[in-house]
Amino acid sequence: MTEAGTLLLEKVLISTKDVSLENIRAARDIVYRTLKPTPTMAYPLLDAELGARAWLKHENHLPTGAFKVRGGLNFMHHFAAAKTHNGVITATRGNHGQSVALAAQLHSIPATIVVPFGNNPEKNEAMKAYGARLVEYGRDFDEAREEVARLAEAENLRFIHSANEPHLINGVGTYAMEIIETLQERGQQADAVFVPIGMGSGLCGVITAFRALSPQTKIFGVQAEAAPSYYLSWRAGKVVGTETAETFADGVATRAPSDFTLEIILNGVDEIVLVNDDEIRDAIRLLWRTTHNLVEGAGAAATAATIKLREQLAGKTVVNVISGGNLDSATVAQIFS
Amino acid sequence: MTEAGTLLLEKVLISTKDVSLENIRAARDIVYRTLKPTPTMAYPLLDAELGARAWLKHENHLPTGAFKVRGGLNFMHHFAAAKTHNGVITATRGNHGQSVALAAQLHSIPATIVVPFGNNPEKNEAMKAYGARLVEYGRDFDEAREEVARLAEAENLRFIHSANEPHLINGVGTYAMEIIETLQERGQQADAVFVPIGMGSGLCGVITAFRALSPQTKIFGVQAEAAPSYYLSWRAGKVVGTETAETFADGVATRAPSDFTLEIILNGVDEIVLVNDDEIRDAIRLLWRTTHNLVEGAGAAATAATIKLREQLAGKTVVNVISGGNLDSATVAQIFS
Repeated sequence: MTEAGTLLLEKVLISTKDVSLENIRAARDIVYRTLKPTPTMAYPLLDAELGARAWLKHENHLPTGAFKVRGGLNFMHHFAAAKTHNGVITATRGNHGQSVALAAQLHSIPATIVVPFGNNPEKNEAMKAYGARLVEYGRDFDEAREEVARLAEAENLRFIHSANEPHLINGVGTYAMEIIETLQERGQQADAVFVPIGMGSGLCGVITAFRALSPQTKIFGVQAEAAPSYYLSWRAGKVVGTETAETFADGVATRAPSDFTLEIILNGVDEIVLVNDDEIRDAIRLLWRTTHNLVEGAGAAATAATIKLREQLAGKTVVNVISGGNLDSATVAQIFS
Repeated sequence: MTEAGTLLLEKVLISTKDVSLENIRAARDIVYRTLKPTPTMAYPLLDAELGARAWLKHENHLPTGAFKVRGGLNFMHHFAAAKTHNGVITATRGNHGQSVALAAQLHSIPATIVVPFGNNPEKNEAMKAYGARLVEYGRDFDEAREEVARLAEAENLRFIHSANEPHLINGVGTYAMEIIETLQERGQQADAVFVPIGMGSGLCGVITAFRALSPQTKIFGVQAEAAPSYYLSWRAGKVVGTETAETFADGVATRAPSDFTLEIILNGVDEIVLVNDDEIRDAIRLLWRTTHNLVEGAGAAATAATIKLREQLAGKTVVNVISGGNLDSATVAQIFS
């Protein structure tokens, strides 16, 4: 569990019915006030390596370098209207926190991000740069979350879970709509779409949009072999956590799945694929060499899974969701050394 | 001289008058049949480092990873209509060749790219992936150009100079229009725009658009200290070549300026700034750390120059043209090691 996953500071009644095509469509108007659609692109060198036609959804081209900002913008739009709290708070390693910080700054809402001591300094700086108050607390995320609970209570702050928020999922679902539309413009149909799973918000958005608008597309979730909680939960049909989540790809390093996103995933995913860290690093290098996009581990996981299933995908049209590009410099050095 | 700069295989009468705002506007319709506008984005972490508000023009987000494809598309549209030759040919290290290859493929025009033996294999693969015939010939570009001349004559191919082509310049000028429009949408005015100079096509497009639509913006060209041919030419008011062009930033490694682009530059640039390779590498690492865009040497040159002039730019609104992102993997390893 690397995000503030199971923390429920207040009983917010949410239903998976709040995640819907209609709500994704409504989110587009809100998201596009701040962002432009990201490119969905194909690269001949990559196609040649994969033996398939691969479309990359470039969420790494967003201003925060990750898809989550779409959800943050949609959430904060609704939150700003409600005025129920003095601000927002979350605990995160990075991408969710940047998303919350940017969206809060846009609405002049105070944002607090709690990270454990030793969190990556580049990620901390990025969150602070969007005006968030950064609080370092505790040895790990479990301890950091205790401080989140204390501060939320003391200061009347709204805790933002990184996945159990329909507004977040509807917001990130806007990228799925863009994929479907770009492929339609090009006269193509996706045979398969691969989506990395952190807490599942991206996959839930893809399921909601694709099941309605592109039902012929097989939907694959992707996790790391040593952090397989959603894979195990999918196999078991119920939440199964893991003791550890040992992958350098922090965007998919989840120990405790969300029951909220799992419900949507169980109803909509075709398969969850596991890839190991070496395969993810190979995919990072491949994406650099063939497309000159340098992406984070989670961002390369979809491509790693596509390589793994290359025999069954030969000649097919495949979408890889490049969820983010936020690698710290030390990891870049290590991957290319 | 690293591109097929001074080679004039046939007398094509061109005039700097053919580079115009009107022709850039016309090029947009052609370019946008294939490409979407690239983002022009600001990043708070980068601003904090620079002490200025910096807008990055993300030509590295284009499908070929570099701005030149805009020119290739515009050129090939007009060439395809004329049907004067059996195909096109050029000599290039990379970005110009990818641009020509992609645009030719789109119009089903045979494209030949001549490179010397030992050209970067990743760049060669990229050009071949767009369907170009790749011919390896000679020990350097001077020898490669002899083969270009021979093949052009023998096979009735149209040589495409990487800069002395108004259609190319008008095509790349479309990015300058996008910058101006994005800043207008945000209610901002650029105090300065920094553009790397290879053969000058990008800078000429910027000069043409900004002089007409944003006359208050100071226009800076950027070259490498050890490859200062346009800088020397600007100082002298006439073409001055150099014996060597010793920079790892191959996109700006020019020995022999084009008299055609120099004429436009002399009439429109405010200043040409030199940066050394260490400063360019620092800028690559800074851009990675603050924006998670990994860019090539030429692509970071504008930012390196902005850092160099930081005192005079304090608090100003500055545009950095990120001309491309095509670094080979070995160079990435070297920069981050």
